[in-house]
Amino acid sequence: MGYARAVSTRGFSEDELIAAIRKVLSGDAPGVVIRVGDDAAVVEAAAGQQVLSTDMLVEGVHFERSTISARDLGAKSIVVNVSDVAAMAASPRYALASIALSPEVEAAWVMELYGGMRAACDEYALTLVGGDCSRADAVVISVTVVGEVAPGRAVTRAGAHPGDLIVVTGSLGAAAGGLALSRARPSKAAEALGKRWGRELAEALARPVARVAEALTLAQAGATAMMDLSDGLAKDLSRLCLESEAGARVELARVPVAPALREGAGLLGVDPLELAIGGGEDYELLATIDLTHLDRARNELDERFGVTLTEVGVIIEEGLVAVDADGNESPLEPKGWDHFADAT
Amino acid sequence: MGYARAVSTRGFSEDELIAAIRKVLSGDAPGVVIRVGDDAAVVEAAAGQQVLSTDMLVEGVHFERSTISARDLGAKSIVVNVSDVAAMAASPRYALASIALSPEVEAAWVMELYGGMRAACDEYALTLVGGDCSRADAVVISVTVVGEVAPGRAVTRAGAHPGDLIVVTGSLGAAAGGLALSRARPSKAAEALGKRWGRELAEALARPVARVAEALTLAQAGATAMMDLSDGLAKDLSRLCLESEAGARVELARVPVAPALREGAGLLGVDPLELAIGGGEDYELLATIDLTHLDRARNELDERFGVTLTEVGVIIEEGLVAVDADGNESPLEPKGWDHFADAT
Repeated sequence: MGYARAVSTRGFSEDELIAAIRKVLSGDAPGVVIRVGDDAAVVEAAAGQQVLSTDMLVEGVHFERSTISARDLGAKSIVVNVSDVAAMAASPRYALASIALSPEVEAAWVMELYGGMRAACDEYALTLVGGDCSRADAVVISVTVVGEVAPGRAVTRAGAHPGDLIVVTGSLGAAAGGLALSRARPSKAAEALGKRWGRELAEALARPVARVAEALTLAQAGATAMMDLSDGLAKDLSRLCLESEAGARVELARVPVAPALREGAGLLGVDPLELAIGGGEDYELLATIDLTHLDRARNELDERFGVTLTEVGVIIEEGLVAVDADGNESPLEPKGWDHFADAT
Repeated sequence: MGYARAVSTRGFSEDELIAAIRKVLSGDAPGVVIRVGDDAAVVEAAAGQQVLSTDMLVEGVHFERSTISARDLGAKSIVVNVSDVAAMAASPRYALASIALSPEVEAAWVMELYGGMRAACDEYALTLVGGDCSRADAVVISVTVVGEVAPGRAVTRAGAHPGDLIVVTGSLGAAAGGLALSRARPSKAAEALGKRWGRELAEALARPVARVAEALTLAQAGATAMMDLSDGLAKDLSRLCLESEAGARVELARVPVAPALREGAGLLGVDPLELAIGGGEDYELLATIDLTHLDRARNELDERFGVTLTEVGVIIEEGLVAVDADGNESPLEPKGWDHFADAT
């Protein structure tokens, strides 16, 4: 801990790297007693309940250094954890970031990575208090975020009941569209990036947004279960149903496909609905809520954040069913963001 | 989080792997409200100060799967963080473990890894509450431990004053001896492992012990600065001095070289003092303490834990000096456990 095992990178000695990282992380922050430089960080803790989340991003699996900037990658590594904490209806407070660097990584890249982490921490009002630094053949970023929640107020995946409506914030599939774009032929990708929808899709993948205040609002409005959409609606909904010991019936026509994805699907050669259901990394909220609370939740999200809340289905006793516009039923396949399959 | 992105390994599907991991981690624990299976874990937090530590272990850099069992590796990944938390005079409470698995890793290996984590958590009275699971070309294990400390009672690296004595617990160099043994010719390694000292060295490397209660005792006895020895006495002491804005004078003849290392140094062809000063992964405590408190600290460690406390030098205004048995001075070279150089 404390970047004690930082490694040499191009143009930086170990000590210079540590000093540079400290500079990026410098500045006092409320609640932080001791950070980077000791065996461990010491922070003030409020009595109550804490939320702990951790996520690992691996080069070649979750990202390629050729298609995302170091700054965006650093920010994203924080945001995906903030999103997990938010999805429990908690507030993020502190972050730890461990990185493994491959020998060809340049010091400037590392500084940009930390700069992105720092910027994301500032945006979501949490503090990066420490980490570890090592060497590997590929870059690995492991971030842990500690958050706070009032006792008993965390919203889990397990609280959905048959009859609850299934709702999602925002729109879905844009990040998966961005991934398709990043994998398109160079000429096609260039054409797409020349258009607004193309830039929106690329942005959705590179710069996800965590719905922190929206999650708190949904919880206060009466959400019975909640999670963030990291692996696609179908797969994540199947997990929520597993934890709630229930099923779900999703009306495909109601799924809010991202407008940019609809616009670009032809050029990219993708099925927009398929990406909206099966694509990952949207970091929108998936929640369940009783009909009596739906209007309040929707109005508050709209008025306070300009965020749309869409009901896409209903919790049932068991099974995962997709219903198309003509009323035909089929199994809602929990195929999602399979990193293992992606990169092999 | 919540092992949401677990990957296929040999003989296990993703869902089977998650279910198996959950089984290893099953059982309620005090303070844990929600763990593995949701977006984040929820735990009870006492009001006060929290200590956050994280460490990343990379295959080919920090370990080889051919020379450490999965169970020992799992335990070690917890212990190294427990040691960091302990070195702040704090008590470990919760752990998060993220792992990246390479395709050739077998499910049984993963289960053993988690079994080792679980056993270490039981031993040090903390609870593994969650994590993440991903794919990579090499195995990466990233553990975060959350601990608690009474407000203002954390002992940092920064409190050493000129005149304080420099003390270490136990003996040094055994883990480095174990590393030398693991790298020896097979015939030599086999000969060494046929002897008690050889098994002790191998054990020191594979099964480090974190000095949790000893650290609390040292803190209560008046330690002014403290850290754990992960990268070797010379390197770690230089870090303590850097944080304390002071120097150190170490008497080489006083450095407590591990008896097993002394015994095996000839066969292994290593300099025992060099490993005791420059070798890493001892996880003993390095502390500074005023002479008036030394006897109390030493007696308590001996009586309560049977652990030796040895004064190896004194904090001075500046500079890092090694003094040999004849009184000759030389620079105490802060060469330590350089993972970057090790594995290239």
